[in-house]
Amino acid sequence: MVKRNIRLVLAYDGTRYHGWQRQKRDLTIQGVIEEKLRIMVQERVRLIGSGRTDAGVHALNQVCNFFTGSNIPLEGIRRGLNALLPEDIHVKSAGEADPDFHARYGVKHKTYAYWVLNRAEPDIFRRNYTWHVAVPLDRRVMADCLAILRGQNDFSAFRSAGSTAKDPVRTMMQSILDEPEEGLIRFTLEADGFLRHMVRNIVGTVVQAGMGKSDPVVFKEIFRSRDRRAAGIKAPPQGLYLTTVSY
Amino acid sequence: MVKRNIRLVLAYDGTRYHGWQRQKRDLTIQGVIEEKLRIMVQERVRLIGSGRTDAGVHALNQVCNFFTGSNIPLEGIRRGLNALLPEDIHVKSAGEADPDFHARYGVKHKTYAYWVLNRAEPDIFRRNYTWHVAVPLDRRVMADCLAILRGQNDFSAFRSAGSTAKDPVRTMMQSILDEPEEGLIRFTLEADGFLRHMVRNIVGTVVQAGMGKSDPVVFKEIFRSRDRRAAGIKAPPQGLYLTTVSY
Repeated sequence: MVKRNIRLVLAYDGTRYHGWQRQKRDLTIQGVIEEKLRIMVQERVRLIGSGRTDAGVHALNQVCNFFTGSNIPLEGIRRGLNALLPEDIHVKSAGEADPDFHARYGVKHKTYAYWVLNRAEPDIFRRNYTWHVAVPLDRRVMADCLAILRGQNDFSAFRSAGSTAKDPVRTMMQSILDEPEEGLIRFTLEADGFLRHMVRNIVGTVVQAGMGKSDPVVFKEIFRSRDRRAAGIKAPPQGLYLTTVSY
Repeated sequence: MVKRNIRLVLAYDGTRYHGWQRQKRDLTIQGVIEEKLRIMVQERVRLIGSGRTDAGVHALNQVCNFFTGSNIPLEGIRRGLNALLPEDIHVKSAGEADPDFHARYGVKHKTYAYWVLNRAEPDIFRRNYTWHVAVPLDRRVMADCLAILRGQNDFSAFRSAGSTAKDPVRTMMQSILDEPEEGLIRFTLEADGFLRHMVRNIVGTVVQAGMGKSDPVVFKEIFRSRDRRAAGIKAPPQGLYLTTVSY
């Protein structure tokens, strides 16, 4: 029997989790969903995600797929999973995918958002959802740094140790910031792929430029150096959201 | 020596707490702050709040006061407490108050906000900060119900058992709703005092009218009956915020 290939779109609040990837002991997104899927379809299921997210990182539209012999209708899968899952993971949609659809290998591009709360006082209601930066940031300087990233480039300067990608060249289609609410700055980065901690390393380095610790000229040199030690700090995980995955 | 009377304004995320009031075993806002104050001023401190908040209820500007023999400057109190307190409680300001200032007895009026997320799908990032109501609500009907509450009235119909207030008459200065973001409805209630669970009982009953289960005429009858059994459900705690306290 040919198994069905089911594609899910998920939102999750990463605060409580040790990231996406299944682990023996720690609570992870993949681990929890696989456990609930198993209860539902009565067989062992391996969930393929579009990519990992780190501990504390969120997703608005993570895409994943799994194969199953079950004949539960799609709406039953979606509702059943949502009934079984904890409140901080939500299945937004379930669809039938082509047999050759693979949530990781098929990715064309991905978009991440990173939220910075830039004001003197913290906002306790946003402590798990933004990076609070108390010193004033120069938006113009940061936007100029981001513009330097566009196009096809070697992103080694923003890749963390432990990255398994062989090729550090990626194409950045979008790298902008806006401020939907005063003091709430959103970075948006869209590329055909991201290296390990790449968004957080970029945001940390851009924010340091925004603080006046460097400028777009220095930022460009850091980027060109392809040397991780030249770049700035890694922004904390809780400001980061995987927003879209395109195939 | 005359002790100083210190007035604090606090924000807190009530999610993790068993409400404001100190308890022997459970984690409470008052309990945590008193513990940290004691460490800071090296003496036992009794914190007087403007009133209790229930488990899961939040505050944007809770007011409280305490007496101390310590001579730590105000900014030192504010910063020191914030350094000691967990991330979900924040001291917004500390000031010297008159010796006769009492955070509870001196209250002139209070304002509460209640947030309802009204759309089919839940928002996992707002699960602890709104009441998710999936069925469409009639804003007009709800606004008409709220208008009935204005003025001086007996609020017994919206008072929960266990209320210790002798007089159930309160003056409602403001009772409105708006929708700052599509699907995100905010109720604002301002009165010279609130009975136990009064805001949640009002919002629950108004939302049931918004669902079509009653209407402003029935709502008015419920209100006039002064009978709690006539009113609707109690809205859950996580949508409720103490926003301002006036003296």
